[in-house]
Amino acid sequence: MNSKHLSLALAGMLTASVCMAQNGAPIKEDFVPSSLNQPQQEYPQVNSQGYVRFKIKAPKADSVRVSLGLGGRGGTKLTKDADGYFTGTTEGPMDEGFHYYHLTVDGGTFNDPGALNFYGSVRWESGIEIPAHDQDFYALKDVPHGNVQQILFPSKSTNTSRRAFVYTPPGYEKDKSKKYPVLYLQHGWGEDETAWSNQGHANLIMDNLIADGKIKPFIIVMTYGMTNNFRPGAGPRPTPPPAGATAPAGAARPRGFNMDAMVKGNGFETVLVDELVPYVDANFRTIADRPHRAMGGLSMGGGETHFITLDKPEVFGYYALLSGGTYTTEELNGKEKPKLVFMSYGSREPASKTVNDAATALKSAGYNAVAFVSENTAHEFLSWRRSLYQLAPLLFN
Amino acid sequence: MNSKHLSLALAGMLTASVCMAQNGAPIKEDFVPSSLNQPQQEYPQVNSQGYVRFKIKAPKADSVRVSLGLGGRGGTKLTKDADGYFTGTTEGPMDEGFHYYHLTVDGGTFNDPGALNFYGSVRWESGIEIPAHDQDFYALKDVPHGNVQQILFPSKSTNTSRRAFVYTPPGYEKDKSKKYPVLYLQHGWGEDETAWSNQGHANLIMDNLIADGKIKPFIIVMTYGMTNNFRPGAGPRPTPPPAGATAPAGAARPRGFNMDAMVKGNGFETVLVDELVPYVDANFRTIADRPHRAMGGLSMGGGETHFITLDKPEVFGYYALLSGGTYTTEELNGKEKPKLVFMSYGSREPASKTVNDAATALKSAGYNAVAFVSENTAHEFLSWRRSLYQLAPLLFN
Repeated sequence: MNSKHLSLALAGMLTASVCMAQNGAPIKEDFVPSSLNQPQQEYPQVNSQGYVRFKIKAPKADSVRVSLGLGGRGGTKLTKDADGYFTGTTEGPMDEGFHYYHLTVDGGTFNDPGALNFYGSVRWESGIEIPAHDQDFYALKDVPHGNVQQILFPSKSTNTSRRAFVYTPPGYEKDKSKKYPVLYLQHGWGEDETAWSNQGHANLIMDNLIADGKIKPFIIVMTYGMTNNFRPGAGPRPTPPPAGATAPAGAARPRGFNMDAMVKGNGFETVLVDELVPYVDANFRTIADRPHRAMGGLSMGGGETHFITLDKPEVFGYYALLSGGTYTTEELNGKEKPKLVFMSYGSREPASKTVNDAATALKSAGYNAVAFVSENTAHEFLSWRRSLYQLAPLLFN
Repeated sequence: MNSKHLSLALAGMLTASVCMAQNGAPIKEDFVPSSLNQPQQEYPQVNSQGYVRFKIKAPKADSVRVSLGLGGRGGTKLTKDADGYFTGTTEGPMDEGFHYYHLTVDGGTFNDPGALNFYGSVRWESGIEIPAHDQDFYALKDVPHGNVQQILFPSKSTNTSRRAFVYTPPGYEKDKSKKYPVLYLQHGWGEDETAWSNQGHANLIMDNLIADGKIKPFIIVMTYGMTNNFRPGAGPRPTPPPAGATAPAGAARPRGFNMDAMVKGNGFETVLVDELVPYVDANFRTIADRPHRAMGGLSMGGGETHFITLDKPEVFGYYALLSGGTYTTEELNGKEKPKLVFMSYGSREPASKTVNDAATALKSAGYNAVAFVSENTAHEFLSWRRSLYQLAPLLFN
């Protein structure tokens, strides 16, 4: 992040009143319903500057707050009107892209009844989308579409059937002889196997890249990255942070975190390497070898990728950490060489300052390393959508 | 419904206090978290009698009500404790199976933060599951599992890519030469293409039937049954009722409903018959002819099935209406004969009294007609899970 970008990032942290004074521009009254609203719902709305306006019906409530707003300052307090609706607008514009949020209604935590829900922070939260200037790359277009299928694979180590989603590219069903490489792609802490499709639009990113001829088709497999027998009443799940990344907004800070214990101790490495990979290779038309198998993940999923690729370098040929730390030459030294190390961050993440140097160090030592910084985004999904878009063309070449 | 069943149904409508006096049994304190709770959530809870207990944190709220409870009497009013939690238990036991519900917090409509959400009543609502005595047939078991895949198919008539979910049975990916029959299965009013998998467990019902050798594998296709260009701000969608069925609890009663106009006028018949069926036949290994293609639906989806099968009898060979009306000999007369007419209701639905007579009349006229009544269930998903379980073995023989 150079000084210009740093200034922009800081400017984004000022209050709306200051921004407006600086810009001399009022809030534009061109609000439209968020693209992630539930059917028929007019609110929340977003304007062309990235401000968000809320409207919540709660005629007998005293107080409604929205967690969304400028960081760390309590979100947006809504004001009750005579008709029993609480309304309000964020103090400043939000970053482009996807954000989780929730309401606090008279002290209780609820979702916005107007918005769709997305699994994050270990709960289904409301989601909103600020249209990004580069949203075309993950838009739903009139191109051939791959499928996203839910599979239930047997897991002896956890004594259950576990769920994964598998993206198969357009044409997969037609040419019965063609085989494909596979990317195993992990979600972040507090999320689950739905995140990369729902929040990440991984399938649409792939469809568009394939339609544009920018990549050769491959399969993506997304599963739940923990094995904590996570059932109601079983107590809190471990709350590991992303390795080297800032915690998601609103997420509880974990204590005493140990990635080795989390990944290996809780058995995810076993589920992934010994159960899911063989199941996918047996049930889909994969090219079942290391040069055609990649692992990547965002945040905690980057931590898992980091750990598992180093522990099982014979399984995966390509490694990708998205807001999930960096590799060092010391770690990779003496192991089977990865064909690619990809590391990315959003520019608003402090660790984004380290990622270019990490790639440079790896390149100096003879590794194929690529760094990517997503401009003007934080530890959030637009960083990771862009990262996947950058990563995909580098895989399996 | 005979007089004994009617008495049972009426008994179910009495208050808990009366039931308890009749039974002489107190509410059993064996509550456990609902199987549909969000991760780590202890509430809502269900006991072995079917009572539901709620616990909602809202320390500064004056009033929290739950829509779930004995019909038509305002649900369950919760009581605030000293710690700021609202708690309460339904007045009486709920029917076995799945129920939608929501909270009213100080006059506003919100979902229970403890429960998973399911799309019904044109919104994502909280869901709860009362374990059914026969739940084994839709349980997740250690058997081979089919996949449920999201497809995005091009629709020229609606100028967009539309979503469907496709269940492919276990083994579909392995034997590349095998072709399968297809059931097109529609959701009800206010629901969408997610309902049959999420609420209905259609995939698990199929997996279990196949594992038990009770059916030959087939594909199920589930898509959204309306074409109202349903975007935020576009105004209310048409609200057709199910043909011959009671409206879902809590659903607004539609006025001036006309199934012909709804299905044909809004273009769903075109989407299904001219766009989705050809897409599925081109992209999946189907047996693409009338004797291997069925259509069924619940509630409004039954109405759609009724209309479309009569309008396009050359397309579908098997017809199934689940809480969605009945066929008459007059309607079928002179058209290509269906290989099966299946009609079902929950016993607590008034129309359940008509379904056996309707089947008898069709059989007298030489049709292969089957009626099914789900005992002690209403216009809700346990009726439809059981109906699918009964229907599947009758298809494609």
